[in-house]
Amino acid sequence: MPSEFELIRQFFVRPTSHTLLGVGDDAALIAPTPGCELVISTDLLVEGTHFLANTEPFDLGWKTLAVNVSDMAAMGATPRWATLAAALPAPTLDWLDAFSRGFFACAEAFKIDLIGGDTTRGPRAFCVTIMGEVPAGAALLRSGAQVGDSIWVSGTPGRAALGLAHLQGRITLAEPQLDQCLAALHRPQPRVVLGLALRGLATAAIDVSDGLLADLGHILTASHCAAKLHIPHLPPAGLARDCYLSGGDDYELIFTLPAAHRRFMTPLAVEIDLPLTCIGTITSSVPNTSDRLVIHDDQGLPITPTRHGFDHFL
Amino acid sequence: MPSEFELIRQFFVRPTSHTLLGVGDDAALIAPTPGCELVISTDLLVEGTHFLANTEPFDLGWKTLAVNVSDMAAMGATPRWATLAAALPAPTLDWLDAFSRGFFACAEAFKIDLIGGDTTRGPRAFCVTIMGEVPAGAALLRSGAQVGDSIWVSGTPGRAALGLAHLQGRITLAEPQLDQCLAALHRPQPRVVLGLALRGLATAAIDVSDGLLADLGHILTASHCAAKLHIPHLPPAGLARDCYLSGGDDYELIFTLPAAHRRFMTPLAVEIDLPLTCIGTITSSVPNTSDRLVIHDDQGLPITPTRHGFDHFL
Repeated sequence: MPSEFELIRQFFVRPTSHTLLGVGDDAALIAPTPGCELVISTDLLVEGTHFLANTEPFDLGWKTLAVNVSDMAAMGATPRWATLAAALPAPTLDWLDAFSRGFFACAEAFKIDLIGGDTTRGPRAFCVTIMGEVPAGAALLRSGAQVGDSIWVSGTPGRAALGLAHLQGRITLAEPQLDQCLAALHRPQPRVVLGLALRGLATAAIDVSDGLLADLGHILTASHCAAKLHIPHLPPAGLARDCYLSGGDDYELIFTLPAAHRRFMTPLAVEIDLPLTCIGTITSSVPNTSDRLVIHDDQGLPITPTRHGFDHFL
Repeated sequence: MPSEFELIRQFFVRPTSHTLLGVGDDAALIAPTPGCELVISTDLLVEGTHFLANTEPFDLGWKTLAVNVSDMAAMGATPRWATLAAALPAPTLDWLDAFSRGFFACAEAFKIDLIGGDTTRGPRAFCVTIMGEVPAGAALLRSGAQVGDSIWVSGTPGRAALGLAHLQGRITLAEPQLDQCLAALHRPQPRVVLGLALRGLATAAIDVSDGLLADLGHILTASHCAAKLHIPHLPPAGLARDCYLSGGDDYELIFTLPAAHRRFMTPLAVEIDLPLTCIGTITSSVPNTSDRLVIHDDQGLPITPTRHGFDHFL
């Protein structure tokens, strides 16, 4: 077995492009861009909870970084640097090679320098901390939604959960939907370009990691608002609808928009080649309450969703 | 069982003193100090590898942050912000309460804001990413040691390993040494004040996490140097000597010093109330080789150490 230091050198040290001192000292050194704020997020992925033991290591490497990049997208930030800490039971070199290729494929796609890390023996788990930058005052927060704002979502939420349901044998998907859903599950595409475009336009944003309703709920809580949803082309009651409303792991963006900025969405969707769908309205400014969300189906009939998103301790 | 969000609110959200946006959004926002570089390090602590299942949760909370603060000390940086990701099997509220009190005791001691985190179900593990600041160009690196520099260590290395050996029944320590060794093991004191004082004085620095010889070895490798050690009051051959030379988990600093700066060490040791001991000399500038370190005991006789530090994959 190669030593910890050899493993790091072999698989996790690559040239950096915007870092003063990368992997190999007690800490990394970066020079933040003057006039920018630093945007920081951390995520821990644990085998059995966030991914299955038989997940393809390339996909897992991609997704480990991608879910963190998605947090930068939700803040309207440019991702810049990341650290990776890994606990591994008894890694084979093949597995580590594929994992690191997936991780760096995502890093290169989003121009992120890996600047530090830690490897240790233990039940398989990965912790990424990502750092991005945003011009001072320009970050998209959860707390800015205003009464009258329209509510939007990118892409097609629910695909990742549908893909997982297919793998679990709970439904059988046909092409091309199968491909789309497995891609959403295994190689989520963080919406960084959308997040950057929404700076100065959106009043609030969040990425869909726990499910559309749960994550929209976080915006409503932070903004002290209520909302009415009327979702075009919402699937009929059943697994597809549950996945749309409550499936986690999608990494699409939910955002709110003042009336004056609605007109930018059609050209933006074309420009970034990504559907942007208006799914409802912020209806009132309310104090803390759990009764914030009214949902209607295509026919205008009220819906009671069956599941409210993912909580690791429920 | 309270939900993930309630656990975070209850135990891990405290007021911040120098953070634009802390726990609760997709990411945190900080404003780096103009003229400073950002110093970043990450560590993953896994139950069974880095700590025992029966470790007191207050101590574990302290140590989880302290080992990261120590990396800031080794860089000559001021620790400023941290994120904490935790995997927990089925936490009791008592356990989480004590862990969080230990964590924040360390955070407050070093004026660190906890700005983000993640909690998930899984085998117990903690990943901290710490961010500090240093004036541009002033960081202490491993790579700066020069021929003729003296080599120094703070405090009394080996105490943490001796404390562990006592707990494992391999030796029996008496007071006051027992107290000192258990304190070193359970509540390591990161040498931040020393690290800051060494800016502009030391040519290289590292903290002792893997063991004195192993960590000095990292300085020699990074600086392409060799060294001769002559350690005053080195314990006679046996467990105490092995712990001094190769025991990990001490979080003292090893640093190298040009001749002109030696005279500052005696007043500095008094000022910060911490022994600073000269243990050797950088002897030559050599290409990559594994034969970098010659060690002599008190009588000037060469020593062959029995164990060369801690590697999680050996």
